[in-house]
Amino acid sequence: MDSQLYFEIQQFYAHQMQSLDNGEAEAFAETFTLDGSFVHHPHNRVDTRTEIALATKRGVEKTRAAGVVRRHWFGMLAVEAAEDGAVRTRYAALTSATAADGSVSWEPSCLVEDLLVRVDGRLLNHVRTVRRDDVREA
Amino acid sequence: MDSQLYFEIQQFYAHQMQSLDNGEAEAFAETFTLDGSFVHHPHNRVDTRTEIALATKRGVEKTRAAGVVRRHWFGMLAVEAAEDGAVRTRYAALTSATAADGSVSWEPSCLVEDLLVRVDGRLLNHVRTVRRDDVREA
Amino acid sequence: MDSQLYFEIQQFYAHQMQSLDNGEAEAFAETFTLDGSFVHHPHNRVDTRTEIALATKRGVEKTRAAGVVRRHWFGMLAVEAAEDGAVRTRYAALTSATAADGSVSWEPSCLVEDLLVRVDGRLLNHVRTVRRDDVREA
Repeated sequence: MDSQLYFEIQQFYAHQMQSLDNGEAEAFAETFTLDGSFVHHPHNRVDTRTEIALATKRGVEKTRAAGVVRRHWFGMLAVEAAEDGAVRTRYAALTSATAADGSVSWEPSCLVEDLLVRVDGRLLNHVRTVRRDDVREA
Repeated sequence: MDSQLYFEIQQFYAHQMQSLDNGEAEAFAETFTLDGSFVHHPHNRVDTRTEIALATKRGVEKTRAAGVVRRHWFGMLAVEAAEDGAVRTRYAALTSATAADGSVSWEPSCLVEDLLVRVDGRLLNHVRTVRRDDVREA
Repeated sequence: MDSQLYFEIQQFYAHQMQSLDNGEAEAFAETFTLDGSFVHHPHNRVDTRTEIALATKRGVEKTRAAGVVRRHWFGMLAVEAAEDGAVRTRYAALTSATAADGSVSWEPSCLVEDLLVRVDGRLLNHVRTVRRDDVREA
């Protein structure tokens, strides 16, 4: 694993999450593979890019209806090379929501694990698994 | 664009914003070109390093008077090479304010775009454009 | 100082702080040298890896008793090469605490300085000095 790949992963996340936070559901979904999965452990799972786009559109509409601008913050990004040029990552994530009156609220912190794969030379998200820190597993 | 430049940009921001957060207005202003601009879209624009230093001094005094320590947090940094060795960046920014009683408050999140240029081998901020997420444009 | 070392430092911090935030006190302590020091300026100082492990265990138990999940966030990381392959870093740090009801609270921001040294080819924390922004020095 070298710094050039780390840089590429950071750019991948910057573009992916700017798409989401700017409300571009299709562009966000396109950062997943066609058969990609977005898992909110342990209760919710969305499979395929098409379904991820639909779920993201609903999320974007909900955010607009709430009158806030959400921003995602990733931190403590650990990366690990996997088979066939794939990469496993693990990081903490937070989401801020800024309202029109300037107030900032926070959604629960999460621990996220991604499996990124290379398709036609480009990194794509194959599986994202999100564990919210307010959900205590038995 | 390679990882060495990304590292250089990260170091540029680390030093720039540590200067600001430590109240060193002159050192902060010196990270801008002599003809640099700091734009708070859509209402406020400060041109030239001299004026940026003056505006920053007023900001630092206001922060001290408020009895808080501000810290800036940049996230989701996307970088793009531009002409003549210049770099365009785009990132989300947040500012925390810690009071003497230990409480932490947050200023509205922002989306920031910078044009960085190279002067005598060193990166400098030519234009910074800040868009606050609590300001909804028509 | 090159981007490969910057990447290595980022990975060091990712693993170090994921250990702490996941409650692995021993793994966290093992990121310090045997004679390492953790200094909370100006009032508290813990010396040796053994004592850091004990202090961290108490911290982890306190966090569990409070029913929250803490996550550390480092930002504006400045790095500087020192003698004998050592590295000095300086960065801002924040800690979020997510409760079971989903609420997020924040501990005071800090400015942190580390001295990292290389032991058997691996980076270890020799000294960490934390200055809380709610503590105003005379």
